[in-house]
Amino acid sequence: MTIENLSSQKSFGGWHKQYSHVSERLGCAMRFAIYLPPQASSGQKVPVLYWLSGLTCTDENFMQKAGAHRMAAELGVAIVAPDTSPRGDDVADDDGYDLGQGAGFYVNATEPPWNRHYQMYDYVLNELPALIESVFPVSDRRSLAGHSMGGHGALVLALRNPERFRSVSAFSPISHPVNCPWGRKAFSAYLGPDETVWQSYDASLLMRDAKHPVPALVDQGEADNFLDEQLKPEALEAAAEASGYPLELRRHEGYDHSYYFIASFIDEHLRFHARHLNH
Amino acid sequence: MTIENLSSQKSFGGWHKQYSHVSERLGCAMRFAIYLPPQASSGQKVPVLYWLSGLTCTDENFMQKAGAHRMAAELGVAIVAPDTSPRGDDVADDDGYDLGQGAGFYVNATEPPWNRHYQMYDYVLNELPALIESVFPVSDRRSLAGHSMGGHGALVLALRNPERFRSVSAFSPISHPVNCPWGRKAFSAYLGPDETVWQSYDASLLMRDAKHPVPALVDQGEADNFLDEQLKPEALEAAAEASGYPLELRRHEGYDHSYYFIASFIDEHLRFHARHLNH
Repeated sequence: MTIENLSSQKSFGGWHKQYSHVSERLGCAMRFAIYLPPQASSGQKVPVLYWLSGLTCTDENFMQKAGAHRMAAELGVAIVAPDTSPRGDDVADDDGYDLGQGAGFYVNATEPPWNRHYQMYDYVLNELPALIESVFPVSDRRSLAGHSMGGHGALVLALRNPERFRSVSAFSPISHPVNCPWGRKAFSAYLGPDETVWQSYDASLLMRDAKHPVPALVDQGEADNFLDEQLKPEALEAAAEASGYPLELRRHEGYDHSYYFIASFIDEHLRFHARHLNH
Repeated sequence: MTIENLSSQKSFGGWHKQYSHVSERLGCAMRFAIYLPPQASSGQKVPVLYWLSGLTCTDENFMQKAGAHRMAAELGVAIVAPDTSPRGDDVADDDGYDLGQGAGFYVNATEPPWNRHYQMYDYVLNELPALIESVFPVSDRRSLAGHSMGGHGALVLALRNPERFRSVSAFSPISHPVNCPWGRKAFSAYLGPDETVWQSYDASLLMRDAKHPVPALVDQGEADNFLDEQLKPEALEAAAEASGYPLELRRHEGYDHSYYFIASFIDEHLRFHARHLNH
């Protein structure tokens, strides 16, 4: 398992670093970014928040735009941001921004041509944390967060693997993908026409049946252009109510789908995760 | 004076907005961004920090990457980020990233073809503040800050116009442009071969003769790739020492030229400016 350091930048007394490595599961070179807080330089093993980005993003968007390093440094939490899909000239792609490269949807694809490389569920669940925990001074205390498509990914991964994650949070997640255009397009391509297969990647359906709940915080802007057609937080809310799931879902007047929304509330998400990571 | 609103995004309880307007002085359409803190929505006239960006930047880099909205909201300070040069198909340009569009250097060009549009000094000093103060709920209490080329611009504008600005700060400024490759290339093109003309745009030379000093804070990363060849903070330091100028220049081990450096210390700059703006 070799990884190559691409960049290093001091930030709030810690370090933002980008790396490239060859992913066995994805069958291609992958880039990720890590923010190591100052505490990681003093021999301490710090917990990790995995951040999953939305459509069209790479490892860079969150690190550059969310303003998360300040609070991560204060709390002593590392942040890892993977890319949003496999990448490369020989990796299947699509002209749409919402399918193919930059749009992996955090599933294990079963349908050709996608099934050869699009195994982001396994990558984020197992291969990436194993790599991170073998290379960096971090503990195996993990939490998950994400935005939009990444909010969907974070919720699904946490709901299906409660033993792996201490807490989960999302901004503007695609909450009920089996029932929205983004989700139906992606799941049709990656998973095929049998919609019963899709259910294991739908946060609202999973939350209805969750046996071992992971504490969850979701923030949603009320001026988000995608709110009604794509995001459907009301489905998640109804699922939590039906199953008694520990979900805190907050709606914020005036905020849209952008990183300005994320930046405005990321401190609260980091504090939420730190409470569970350091418990 | 008509301006067109291009985007509005709620951020930390305030608003980030982009506008386009036709600049008389520059002879072209210009874009700028403004962050209005929550206090501006309650009828209060808030002071303004003008942020001048570096080479290749637009109004967007600082707003997206500096993480400045949080503290601006807390302190009740508006931030205005102009573009870094005139723009447009009929505006002179150059293949280099360090001359022409994206590289106005905050001077009034005297040499053709640049003199037709490149009048950024006047634009930032007069036209833009007049527009801002006529349209938005802001006061005429102004401060200046900037990065790299914009740090040079901020220092020069404040040093030459102490009656207009309460305080000035810079990250990694081009401190002595008459004596570095970026400055010599730009000044040769915009101002012509007579180097005595260049002196009125050199912060270190101006600081030696400053009669009415504006309080100044400068931060410089010691791992900045451009430090020795282009930035020369030691010239600024020597000038301040010679004239007894109230300059606080701080060097930070490990930090580079990026927005991660700016983000790490922007809160302290905002607090510095707020002290002088609210005095």
